[in-house]
Amino acid sequence: MLTVHHLGKSQSERIVWLCEELGIPYELKRYARDSVTMLAPPDYKALHPIGAAPVIVDGDLVLAESGAIVDYIMAKYGKGRLVLGPDAPDFAQFLYWFHFANGTLQAGMGRLMLLNRLKLAEDNPMLPATKARVDRAFDLVDTRVRDAEYLAGSTFTTADIMMGFSLTTMRYFQPYDLARCPNVVKYLGRIGARPAYRRAMEKGDPGMALLLS
Amino acid sequence: MLTVHHLGKSQSERIVWLCEELGIPYELKRYARDSVTMLAPPDYKALHPIGAAPVIVDGDLVLAESGAIVDYIMAKYGKGRLVLGPDAPDFAQFLYWFHFANGTLQAGMGRLMLLNRLKLAEDNPMLPATKARVDRAFDLVDTRVRDAEYLAGSTFTTADIMMGFSLTTMRYFQPYDLARCPNVVKYLGRIGARPAYRRAMEKGDPGMALLLS
Repeated sequence: MLTVHHLGKSQSERIVWLCEELGIPYELKRYARDSVTMLAPPDYKALHPIGAAPVIVDGDLVLAESGAIVDYIMAKYGKGRLVLGPDAPDFAQFLYWFHFANGTLQAGMGRLMLLNRLKLAEDNPMLPATKARVDRAFDLVDTRVRDAEYLAGSTFTTADIMMGFSLTTMRYFQPYDLARCPNVVKYLGRIGARPAYRRAMEKGDPGMALLLS
Repeated sequence: MLTVHHLGKSQSERIVWLCEELGIPYELKRYARDSVTMLAPPDYKALHPIGAAPVIVDGDLVLAESGAIVDYIMAKYGKGRLVLGPDAPDFAQFLYWFHFANGTLQAGMGRLMLLNRLKLAEDNPMLPATKARVDRAFDLVDTRVRDAEYLAGSTFTTADIMMGFSLTTMRYFQPYDLARCPNVVKYLGRIGARPAYRRAMEKGDPGMALLLS
């Protein structure tokens, strides 16, 4: 039996969501962030040497890292669902957005969060430079979901699951105004209408307001 | 014919290296960073809307993002080489280190680089906190390559290719002393002895000193 260790308001919401989309059996163990520091509690950090969410346990395997966990679950339990193969016309789009999530968007949001916590002088040039890179990432997403229903194209895939956290819950840690991205808001409306997404969020973070706009 | 657009001293060295390991035909187009700002030149930024390395062109496809490009090339031209499948005992290790490269190590190095460029007061608590996370990532790699020849285990894979840049050339932008990681140094010795690695570096960044220790 797969166990998903879910730290509240964290990247591990992706894994809960994936399990709900696939409809596979899993045990959900929830952990709350420290209410002052917002860091993971000691028992979450002890799960895996990297000390960060997400973490799953499957038999003897303890695995961390969003992309690795998603690829692992798809290979073991996915039965070909929610992914595009090399022969699909949108294969490259699928790969691009899947990796863009942590490779570009989440990394950019993390750097922006770091700068904002430093309370730099408002005229520090690193602020607009870092903000501009995040804006470019959001603009790219906006153009994509203006032209396609989901990130990989007409099919909902794990690329949407990887991107979802960075477009929504991550904004609790680094606010981002989606007014500049009307197509992202419409896209998040489509995501928020998915029963599996709603079930995942209700199970993983009950009562958390969903940042879908 | 696959075209690899390589920005000097950048993540696109992974793609040159991958093509050399696979021995597939490709055209290499090199671009130099601006000698003052160290940024990509305008003609590189114009290749893809994200404006960052790596970028490949394959027929009508223009693709960016390291992880996506590696997955794409493996699916199209890899013929099952350099990857582990779901039935391999080290499948999860392979996935973990493949995604750890940009999801954790490169992201951490990027945040550290950003902080160092800000010339913060030496007692700013964000510095040791960010450094500690990068140290934890390097320590994890060090333990792994103490116990295994390559990151996925006994087999060289694309996980090593993804990690290579962050362990070596990235240290031109964010120095990191490998004295604390003797097993990483030995591992990089094994990497540096690979003919395909040496060919890739000589073709992509001729004359660049390799940061293998």
